[in-house]
Amino acid sequence: IPFGQVENLSHDSLIRRAASLVTDSSSSFLSQTTLALIDAITEYSKAVHTLIALQKRYLDSLEKLTPAEEDTIWQVIIGQRLEVSDKRDECMRFELNWVNAVKLCETAAEAAYISGAEHASITVRTNIQVAQSQVEKAQKMSVDADVKLAETKVMEVERVSQYVASLENSDEEEVPEAYLRED
Amino acid sequence: IPFGQVENLSHDSLIRRAASLVTDSSSSFLSQTTLALIDAITEYSKAVHTLIALQKRYLDSLEKLTPAEEDTIWQVIIGQRLEVSDKRDECMRFELNWVNAVKLCETAAEAAYISGAEHASITVRTNIQVAQSQVEKAQKMSVDADVKLAETKVMEVERVSQYVASLENSDEEEVPEAYLRED
Repeated sequence: IPFGQVENLSHDSLIRRAASLVTDSSSSFLSQTTLALIDAITEYSKAVHTLIALQKRYLDSLEKLTPAEEDTIWQVIIGQRLEVSDKRDECMRFELNWVNAVKLCETAAEAAYISGAEHASITVRTNIQVAQSQVEKAQKMSVDADVKLAETKVMEVERVSQYVASLENSDEEEVPEAYLRED
Repeated sequence: IPFGQVENLSHDSLIRRAASLVTDSSSSFLSQTTLALIDAITEYSKAVHTLIALQKRYLDSLEKLTPAEEDTIWQVIIGQRLEVSDKRDECMRFELNWVNAVKLCETAAEAAYISGAEHASITVRTNIQVAQSQVEKAQKMSVDADVKLAETKVMEVERVSQYVASLENSDEEEVPEAYLRED
């Protein structure tokens, strides 16, 4: 084997090894961002469910509350809405990182394949698929929560209309101030 | 600090760290492919210069060669042309890896920046610039060699025309067979 050829073999193997290290670190970056995104989605879903429970409880006891109690429960609901909004922002932030990680893994898989590190290329492609299916599952969970929240909204509108009607039929008590707010 | 926030800080720092590891390994992949490409370009340029020297030597001694000597020197020239062609293929192969490495580093730089690992992002961008200027310098070298080879070609055509004319003026000796080949 001539000297030049040995040197090129060595370049090839160094490049392949370096490409494998990139697919390893990209996979690890992907799993960190996947975990973070799934956690964020879970936290968001939990926050939405808490909000739904609070709103249901409020609607169930609508007639029994004093104005002071009503105000207190509304402070809690508003706080929880802020919490939901914060968690949604966090989901978006982690989703951006996650999308970048997927893109990075795809680029790394291609680079590894071209360099001859086929096994590393296949491994990282598998990791992408696993991450995508995990995130999809989590996203379904948050979509379910969003649907339930929308349903509560419908129930809320109906319930409050009924309450307002009953108030109009009896005395001229004021409509709960909170329901005049935009949200 | 609420529990949720601590957890998110930890996700953020894990993501940042993972992103830094990707920029590190991408930079290392880039430097491996840069070294390989520069070596390949250098080898190619050397091979071209050897070919130029061989062809010049042949042209300088055109009238003094016996047909057997001529045949021998032509075998060497043909061998060297194959060598040049092999080295050119190798340059293209390593260039493909290098282009992928640059693309990978750019993706890694963006992912690192988004994740908040700004220092890692800047470092990898600097590495891209250094690699690009190194490769450009090497490519200039091979372009110079190509230009010199083209000049030799012109010289060769002139020199052989003179030789053929001188043969026609003297005896009816045959035109060197090699010059009837396409190359």
